[in-house]
This record gives sequence, C-alpha cells and structure tokens, in this order.
Amino acid sequence: MAPTPKKYGMVLYEGFQLLDVAGPLDVLNLLSTHVDGISLSLVAETLQPQSTSPKCFPENMGMKPFATSQVLIPDHTFETAPQFDVLIIPGGMGCFDPNDAGKPNLTILNPVIQFILKQYPKLQYLLTVCTGSGITSLTGLLDGKKATGYKGAWKVIPPWRPQVSWVPSARWVVDGNIWTSSGVSSGIDLVFAFVEATYGGKIAQDIAVWMEYNRHLDPNVDPFGIQEN
Amino acid sequence: MAPTPKKYGMVLYEGFQLLDVAGPLDVLNLLSTHVDGISLSLVAETLQPQSTSPKCFPENMGMKPFATSQVLIPDHTFETAPQFDVLIIPGGMGCFDPNDAGKPNLTILNPVIQFILKQYPKLQYLLTVCTGSGITSLTGLLDGKKATGYKGAWKVIPPWRPQVSWVPSARWVVDGNIWTSSGVSSGIDLVFAFVEATYGGKIAQDIAVWMEYNRHLDPNVDPFGIQEN
Repeated sequence: MAPTPKKYGMVLYEGFQLLDVAGPLDVLNLLSTHVDGISLSLVAETLQPQSTSPKCFPENMGMKPFATSQVLIPDHTFETAPQFDVLIIPGGMGCFDPNDAGKPNLTILNPVIQFILKQYPKLQYLLTVCTGSGITSLTGLLDGKKATGYKGAWKVIPPWRPQVSWVPSARWVVDGNIWTSSGVSSGIDLVFAFVEATYGGKIAQDIAVWMEYNRHLDPNVDPFGIQEN
Repeated sequence: MAPTPKKYGMVLYEGFQLLDVAGPLDVLNLLSTHVDGISLSLVAETLQPQSTSPKCFPENMGMKPFATSQVLIPDHTFETAPQFDVLIIPGGMGCFDPNDAGKPNLTILNPVIQFILKQYPKLQYLLTVCTGSGITSLTGLLDGKKATGYKGAWKVIPPWRPQVSWVPSARWVVDGNIWTSSGVSSGIDLVFAFVEATYGGKIAQDIAVWMEYNRHLDPNVDPFGIQEN
C-alpha cells in the first residue's frame, strides 16, 4: 500500500484563475494542521511572480479583460522542482490563445505539459481544476479516461482532445489516479473529496466546518452541468 | 445619490486567511470585466510580502500551526494608500495573541485599526470577512450595530467588544454601510450579495455562473450558526 501523500505541488502560469489555486491551497493549509509532514509548493516556468491576468487576454472569449489582478510567487521552476506526490493543475484565461480563444495557448502551456509528463510517472495523484483538465488532456494522459472540466468553455475545450471521455455533467470525476473538477469553485469540492478519500472523512469535515464551507458531496450533482442530447 | 463604488482596498496582515482574501478578490476580478473603472489594491503595514501564516502561531487555539503558507504582495502601505470607496477586512489566525488566543494581537491589529478609522469617514462601504469583524469591532465603529463573524471563535471574539449587537446565526449581516460575514468561505457569499445590491442581480449571477459557484442567497440561513439560549 502506497504511503499517504505528503508533497503537494501547485502549477502556476500567467493567467491562472485565483480561486482555482487559492481554494485548494487553503484547504491544504488546513490539512497541514491535521496531518504531519504536508508540504506545498508553487511551481512555474520561472521564479517571477505569476499574475492572474494573462499578458495577452484572449480576444474572442466574449468578455472584457480583467482590470484587476494579483500575483503569486513560485517556490520552484519546472526545472528545479522536486518530485511531488500530488500535482494540481489550475485553470485560467491564460490557457487560451490570445488571437483565437478556440485554441490552446501553447506558448504558455507547452512547459506545463512537459512538466506534467515529467512528474506523472512517480505521482500518486494528479488533480485538475477548471480548464486545468483541458491543459492536462494535451499530455495524452487522459486518453480513454473519463474527465470533466469548465462548463463555460465546454464547446471549446473537449475538441482539444477528443480521445478523452469528457463528462458534461459532473462536479468532479475520478478515473484511476486522475481527479478532474468542473469550473473554478468546484476545485474546492474536489479537494475536500480528495482529502476525505485520502486522509478520512473526519479530517475533511473538520476542515469544512473550520472554513464554514458547505461542501458539494455528490460528484454527480452538477448545478452547472451541460445537458447533451 | 452616491456614485457607484469603484476603488476597492483589501487589507493584509501577517496571518491573514487565504480564502478570506482570495474568494472576494476573485469575485471582484470578474466584476472588473463587467464594470468599467474598478480598481483593487492590497494594503498592509509595509510593502513586504504578507504571509498567511502568522510569525507566532496562537498557542491555545486547540490546533497545530500551519505547516504550509503563501504570501501576497501589498500594493500600498497604510500610510501611502489612497482613499478607497470600499474597504475589506479579512480574518485570520494573525488576529489572535500568540500567548493568549482569547485576546486580540494588538501588535498586529493596531495599525489595521488606525487605518480603518482613517479611511472610514470617506468610505462608501466597509466589508469584513470572518474574524475581520472582530478586528473592526475594536475601532468602535460597530458599537450599537448588528454584526456577525467567525463561528469557530464565537466564545472568544464577541467579548472583545460587547457594545456590538453580535448576531450568532447569520451567513452575513448588513447594518448601515457595514457588511460583516461569518467565517472564511462566507466572505464569497457576502461579496456576491454586495455586488448584487450595488451593481445589480444580473452581474452577480453572471459572475456566479462563470465561477460555477452556488451562492448562499439568504443571509439568515447559517449552516454554521450558533444556537444561543
């Protein structure tokens, strides 16, 4: 039986979505008060502060660019990061091509894709939030697996990798050791479910009460799900 | 009629709770794509990166210190910050005295208290999340007003300022131009309700759908409320 996972890595890139990252991180900060030895690193292509606002905002997404943004500071680069037990891939507007939001921004995503492929063979679990599953699908690791993702870009992202069995209505999906969530705030529910499955229901519930968070408990109930015919 | 608020300030201090800050910030980042001219600044005593983990963790809180943490970087100090329209005060473990968690950590909080008092006369709105209402109560601005706060410290914080009419069961409370929320994740619901009241229900709902967030819509329904006899 594999040891309980301890070493968490969260990927950052220009244009990550703040809550995709901060929701799971805060649950894991609390986990570190319950389970000894938890570590948590932010990893990006460089050690430069990474902004929530992409340098070039996708033009044809039907929304105006963010006028406000925040930065988080990576602890490691993709080159220098240690091997993690659990890697988390957040979503964000940075994953879309600024000139054609129907396409992935491979300038931003290729280093992320290579890092996922480098880490995956020794990962215990790979978790994605929102469009993070779209990014991860480009590695091929989701081929033939069930996965979900951001419902606001459902017409855009699944075509990036039709070999994935995309689930149009699910708060989150588990297939093997890969957990994928729906959009933004659903990443919090995914991480709570992961903590429950991995460290026990009492710890997950204690953290939820501490954070006064009303969990979505059923992965199949998706208030934002797409009804396909 | 006062103009629609545009200039937001979020206070940081050592030991702020990540989701108290990041939840509201991400809603406001999205607001900035709907409403022109929104600005959003992080403000602290100094321009040093502010950590989610307090330098001295309160000893008698019945929990172990965080083993993991993140930092956010202030844009302004309390001295140099411009006048805001809306000021947000987050909660966090940093507000408790490391040697006696029953007491406020005035070394950390006095500069915050002075900043609230400096800003309040020209603020349109003052918003608090979690133990942020406890901090704000120390200014005296909540005296005679209804307010709520973090239910996990309900025996500790209301005695800091008995002149406040503390509400033991509410997801959030509005009294005059001061909005106070319950613990951690309830700050997201408070900000959505504030956006709805201030910019209209359609914008609030559009942002909630974009973030796939299931809002708590009734401030009086508090899943973590305290039943007092």
